[in-house]
Amino acid sequence: MSTSEPPTVPAGDVPDITLYWLNQSRAQRIIWLLEELKLPYKLEIFKRVNKLAPAAGKKIHPLGKFPMLSLNGEVLAESALIIDVMAERYGPQLLPPKEEEIRYRYFMHYAEGSFMTPLVIGVVMNALGSAPMPFFIKPIARMIASKVEESFVFPNYVTHLDFLEGELEGRTFFVGEKLTGADILLSYPLTAMKGKVKQFSAEAYPKLWAYTERLEAMDGFKKAEAKTADMETETL
Amino acid sequence: MSTSEPPTVPAGDVPDITLYWLNQSRAQRIIWLLEELKLPYKLEIFKRVNKLAPAAGKKIHPLGKFPMLSLNGEVLAESALIIDVMAERYGPQLLPPKEEEIRYRYFMHYAEGSFMTPLVIGVVMNALGSAPMPFFIKPIARMIASKVEESFVFPNYVTHLDFLEGELEGRTFFVGEKLTGADILLSYPLTAMKGKVKQFSAEAYPKLWAYTERLEAMDGFKKAEAKTADMETETL
Repeated sequence: MSTSEPPTVPAGDVPDITLYWLNQSRAQRIIWLLEELKLPYKLEIFKRVNKLAPAAGKKIHPLGKFPMLSLNGEVLAESALIIDVMAERYGPQLLPPKEEEIRYRYFMHYAEGSFMTPLVIGVVMNALGSAPMPFFIKPIARMIASKVEESFVFPNYVTHLDFLEGELEGRTFFVGEKLTGADILLSYPLTAMKGKVKQFSAEAYPKLWAYTERLEAMDGFKKAEAKTADMETETL
Repeated sequence: MSTSEPPTVPAGDVPDITLYWLNQSRAQRIIWLLEELKLPYKLEIFKRVNKLAPAAGKKIHPLGKFPMLSLNGEVLAESALIIDVMAERYGPQLLPPKEEEIRYRYFMHYAEGSFMTPLVIGVVMNALGSAPMPFFIKPIARMIASKVEESFVFPNYVTHLDFLEGELEGRTFFVGEKLTGADILLSYPLTAMKGKVKQFSAEAYPKLWAYTERLEAMDGFKKAEAKTADMETETL
């Protein structure tokens, strides 16, 4: 458990926030959100067990999927909803300009509804390729994992990266002219891919690469990173 | 191409709608949406090629993921956004009561952001277990697919079905007291699982099973089904 700096919102309006955080997970961006909103919060730390989220998460919300955020006793789940609710109540600066509202809402659905799917399958195939099994089966498991990667995962990475590169044409952020919740939501898949997924390179996707580096250099992102640096010991 | 019945909205306000539809896909529920809203629309039919969406979809939207809907020339993607935008503009009766707005928005993110993930992995593992390959590899591929199913896919089905069964406690629909966009969105994964996924049974999940049957019996659902009955020739 840890607490952020003193709040900047008036004392009477200070919400009671607990973020349920899992290492190496989509929860990281919600720390960024809370740092960006300068809200005080408690952090409850969960660690992966054999790469999976621990069952204890189901005591907070029946799905036990991280992040989960308790706001004045009410538990919110789904990253996009957490970001939107918190921005609406405590940080309208993270909401889009009116004329790009549909574009913003699109990305809020796209990030988890479309972009994350091949990434999750990629992680499962990666686990399959390195899982402990008899030596005579291992090469076949690796071959099968490669087949799924080549036929489904990698082509989908390229489709998504192409799309996102195109959407950054003439833009610094994905919506409007400054940071919005959509950038915070997209920061997780992009930083998770950067340096790990061979399809995502500075050469192939210069705008998207520069954008991701821009996010990583932002104060709120760095504060969030520093907050959990000593807890991110496990790699996926 | 086909067109629905005459519109019930005033002639001057009739939107120009084209739904890009793929057989055996999440697009089916958008036909239900349009039938429910009693809007006129053109249907552009795409068929799966070797079980996958055809590349031609990328000419409509860079991701080429179905459904896509053109509204007065603007292309919308992501099922939840399509449902919300169309309901806001043409059918507020599908929106939630004010006091359950957060619950509604939760399900609009949950359906694609969480619930669909194990289903997609289940389809990939199913394809893997039945893909053409040398006879001496086939049993190992089946074994590996089973291992992913037993360790990841099936436990996730149970987690989601348990959750949804619980959320229907004392309710006829997921939000409020009548059909909303959340039910239309959830209709696809639920009807796709019903009768195909052994974990989802009337005995294990009586409320969810009855709910799914209730949706299937609704006029708009049946109209949508009738509309595409002759085009749903391929099975996943």
